[in-house]
Formats: sequence, C-alpha cells, structure tokens
Amino acid sequence: MTLAITLHYLDLLGTVAFAMTGLLAATRQQLDLFGAIVIAMVTAVGGGTLRDLILGQPVFWVGENLYIYVVVVTTLLVFGYARLRPMPMRWLMYLDALGLATFSVIGAQKAMALGHSDPIIIMAGIMSGVVGGMIRDVLMGEVPLILRKEIYATASFLGLSLLLLLIDFGLAQDWAVVLSVLTILMLRVLGLIFNIGLPVFRFRAHPEK
Amino acid sequence: MTLAITLHYLDLLGTVAFAMTGLLAATRQQLDLFGAIVIAMVTAVGGGTLRDLILGQPVFWVGENLYIYVVVVTTLLVFGYARLRPMPMRWLMYLDALGLATFSVIGAQKAMALGHSDPIIIMAGIMSGVVGGMIRDVLMGEVPLILRKEIYATASFLGLSLLLLLIDFGLAQDWAVVLSVLTILMLRVLGLIFNIGLPVFRFRAHPEK
Amino acid sequence: MTLAITLHYLDLLGTVAFAMTGLLAATRQQLDLFGAIVIAMVTAVGGGTLRDLILGQPVFWVGENLYIYVVVVTTLLVFGYARLRPMPMRWLMYLDALGLATFSVIGAQKAMALGHSDPIIIMAGIMSGVVGGMIRDVLMGEVPLILRKEIYATASFLGLSLLLLLIDFGLAQDWAVVLSVLTILMLRVLGLIFNIGLPVFRFRAHPEK
Repeated sequence: MTLAITLHYLDLLGTVAFAMTGLLAATRQQLDLFGAIVIAMVTAVGGGTLRDLILGQPVFWVGENLYIYVVVVTTLLVFGYARLRPMPMRWLMYLDALGLATFSVIGAQKAMALGHSDPIIIMAGIMSGVVGGMIRDVLMGEVPLILRKEIYATASFLGLSLLLLLIDFGLAQDWAVVLSVLTILMLRVLGLIFNIGLPVFRFRAHPEK
Repeated sequence: MTLAITLHYLDLLGTVAFAMTGLLAATRQQLDLFGAIVIAMVTAVGGGTLRDLILGQPVFWVGENLYIYVVVVTTLLVFGYARLRPMPMRWLMYLDALGLATFSVIGAQKAMALGHSDPIIIMAGIMSGVVGGMIRDVLMGEVPLILRKEIYATASFLGLSLLLLLIDFGLAQDWAVVLSVLTILMLRVLGLIFNIGLPVFRFRAHPEK
Repeated sequence: MTLAITLHYLDLLGTVAFAMTGLLAATRQQLDLFGAIVIAMVTAVGGGTLRDLILGQPVFWVGENLYIYVVVVTTLLVFGYARLRPMPMRWLMYLDALGLATFSVIGAQKAMALGHSDPIIIMAGIMSGVVGGMIRDVLMGEVPLILRKEIYATASFLGLSLLLLLIDFGLAQDWAVVLSVLTILMLRVLGLIFNIGLPVFRFRAHPEK
C-alpha cells in the first residue's frame, strides 16, 4: 500500500472521528437528527472547505461525494448504536488526534503542490485541522476550546514546521510526511495525557490612558 | 407568466421575509439601525452566498444589486411602520416558509444546471434555504434554532429529494419544481401548526474509557 | 511619498491596530498564546478575506505574506511588552479608528478598480473595515459590539458615500481618497469622544396574529 493510499484511508478515518466529535456536541445541545448531521458535516469538512476557498481551489467534497456519505453514514450508525451502549471516550480522543494529524498534513501538501510559500503551507495545514472544530464550537455557542486549552493547533504547527524543515534538508517527501503525521499525533496525545497547555495570553490596557 | 418569472418574484418575496426574520432578531438584541441592516442582509443573502462560493460561482448579489436594495428598503419600511403598530407574527412565519421553499428549489436548480451530482444538488438547495438563518442566530449569540426544533431543513431535504425523483421519473422540470416548492411549503407549515419535530440526537460517551 | 505608498503604510498600521483589538479580546477570554495569534489574525485579515472571496479575487494575504508576519510579530511583541506595563487604551482606540478608515477605503478602491457598481463598492469597503471585528466577537461568544453601539460601520458608510460623490463630481481620485479617509477617521473619533450612537431598531411582532 503506497503512502498516498494510506493517507487517503487515514483521511476518511479522520472524517469519521471529526464527525463524531460533532455528534458529541450535538448531544450536549439537544440537537435533533438533522441538526446532528449538519454539525457532523461542518466539523468534518469545514476546515478543508475554508482552505480550498482561500486557496482558490474547487472545494474538495463537491467533486468527490465520498466525504458526504461518510459523514451521513457515521451519524446514522452512531444514532443507532449509541442508544444501546456508551462509546469509549478515550478512543474517540485518539481518533480525533489522528484526524488532526492527517488533515493538517494533507492540507499542507495541497498548498505545497500549488507552489505556495511556507507560511501559507503552514496556515493551510492548520486551517484544515482546526477550523472544523472551531465552527462546531461557535455554532454550539461556545468559545472554541482549542483557542483556550491543551496542545491542539500547536501540535499541528510544530509537525508542519518539521515537515517543511525535513523537505528543505532533502528528505524524501514520503518520509517527511510520515514523520510529520507521527509528530502531530504524538504531541497531541502527550498533551491529552499530561494535560499540557500553552501559557495564557495576557495583555493589559489602561482604560484611562 | 412563466415559471421562471414566478420563481423570481417568489425569490424576492422570500428575500423580504428572510430580511424581516433578521429584523425580529435585531429587535431582541437591541441592535441599532445599521446593525439591523447588517443582520437583515446576512439573513437574506447569506445562504445563497455560501452556496455560490462553494460551487465556485460568482456571488449572485454582486452582479444583481436588486437583492441589496430589497433588503435595505425592507429595513427602512419596517423601521418606520413598526413604530406605529405590531406586525402579525403568523403571516411572517408563513412568508418565511415560502422563502425557505423558494430559496431551496432555486439553489438546487442552480447546482443542477452546473451538472452536479444529486447529493451536491440537495446540499446546495438546503444551504440556500437555511444558512442565512444560521448565521443570523450565531451573530445574535444563539444556537441556531433550526438545528434544534421543528421541521425546517427537513422540509427542504424532503422537497428536494422529491424534485430529483420526479425529474428522474421523467416529469417535466417545471412541474417537478412546482410540486417541490409546494411540498416544502406544506411540510414547513404543517410543522409550524402541529409543532412537529425530529427526535433529539443522543450520543453517550463513557468518559472513563 | 505618493498616496498609494502612504495608504500601504496606513494599511499595515491598521493591521497592527486590528490585531491588537483581537489580543485584547484574547485576554478577556483567557486564550493561550496560539489562540491569541488566531484571534489577532482573524481580526486583522478577516474582513479583507471575505471581501476577496465575495468579489472572486485571490485572497490578498495568500500572495503577500507581509500581513501574516505583521500579525505574528505584533502578537509576540505585545506578549512580551504587556507583561511589563499596561498599554494606553485610548491610543489603541484611535489606531483602530485609523484602521477602520484605511481598510474601508482600500477595500472600496479594490471593488472600484474591478468596475463594480456603487452599492457593491460601498459593501466591499464596509466589509473590509468591520467583518474582522465581527468574527472576533463571534469567536469570543459575544454579539458583535459594532452592531449595537457607537458610530462604527456608519462612519465607514458615510465616508465611502462621500468618496463616490466626490469622484462623481469630478474630483481627482487621490483627493477623494484623502478626504474619505479623514471623514471616516473623524466621525469614528467624534463618536468615541461623544459616545454617539444610532437609534435602536424596534420591530414589534404580534405573537397571536
């Protein structure tokens, strides 16, 4: 199995995971079945959609309906299964970490193939990985958690910087991609286990000056 | 009067109705006149704008300013009139249902004319009908109501599925369009009158596994 | 120094100011350093990004990374400096007013150069000036302040209307631009000092009719 095919399967697995974090949010807010599909869809494809719009590319799921089907089937399966027994939360978080890693690297590769500069490649990758979750949180009336706590987008940033460095140093792109995916996954999982976060941003402004 | 012209007038009527639901929200949040125009605009044209961006088409109101004028004039008229006497809420809800039906079918037709697949046609139609209201609710700090209660997007989904089925069965597109608009309108109004909703989505995750 | 170069510097200064209002919001919500960069970025480039997407143009910061660097460096400098001493709030508000004026006029000029109609020119200008702040507020879980209080977008609207009028009356575009920037700046600052706002929008609907 080549790397491209492996990435494609990981991409679909990430889609399932992101859809499921959307479904968790739908449950908290007592959405109905249709609302659940909308949130699952937005969480799973929102990041890649914004990336494609900003890069001026055709939106990825318009030409390839597989992603839509994956989200709808995931929602219906969870709708049935979750009535029977609860899902293991920890597995879901690990799947989500895998989704973050895969989406980030695939998004960065897309910008790279279009010949964009390094900052745009990194931003395209981060957007692909985190924007879906941000829209999910905003629709649910919450301040996006990933802006506040835990290593999340930071893992994506560090892994994508490594990707660019390794390619600059002449490593074959396939190996750079594998190492980058593993780095993001590992950083995110370590962040989850040890509950590590960045320092809080502090900016005092003097209201009377 | 041909169907295309009728649809165009219904489209403008729907724009008025959607703008007015935006104005209702503006009143709840004590927006000023300018804020009211912004919310009315976003509610009325937001869905079609996202549809056009995602389909890679020119945004519909950029080339045809009529929609902008309709929203601004509606806001100013309501600003004057509503000081005199309250508006009948029920009429507004029926107008909104008509807007949902028309926007959905026009959006689906646009995707159909571009040769897109059935899932994309349905998503383009639903987006046209519901995204404006979702952005309105998010801007007003509310979880979008349509994700939570009542038959709303579901009416759009069923009507658009009927549209595709009828065309597949060889019905003339004009008739299919008429039946689809009437179906969405009827389902939405029935949902309003009998207060019907979909089942709430439930997804339990076990926090310790 | 030609007007175009002056506007370019004002544009960068406005980017710094908008990024800083994003950082103020990040502090209120206890975001971490990465979240602060995201909010600063969204506030500074969000308006121009939506304008470019809607006008069907390449997104301005994708081809010119300077804006991204300005936002990141601003965030890091503020992160270091603000630990030492508070910033003068009033200066920040004046800088923000300058950003509003410059972004509005540059956005309008961009639509004008593309040959768009007057309503689109005005909407492109207002979007460039206010949408970044609106996304910032929505991400922070707040109803966008500019929809509710103070002369903000209204200053942009009046200044841009003046711009179009002056050009219609045959004034050289450079002078029209200068007068328009000064008008928006002045209206906004007067609004700040005297705490002037538009009337609140009122729209009563009769729930039983």
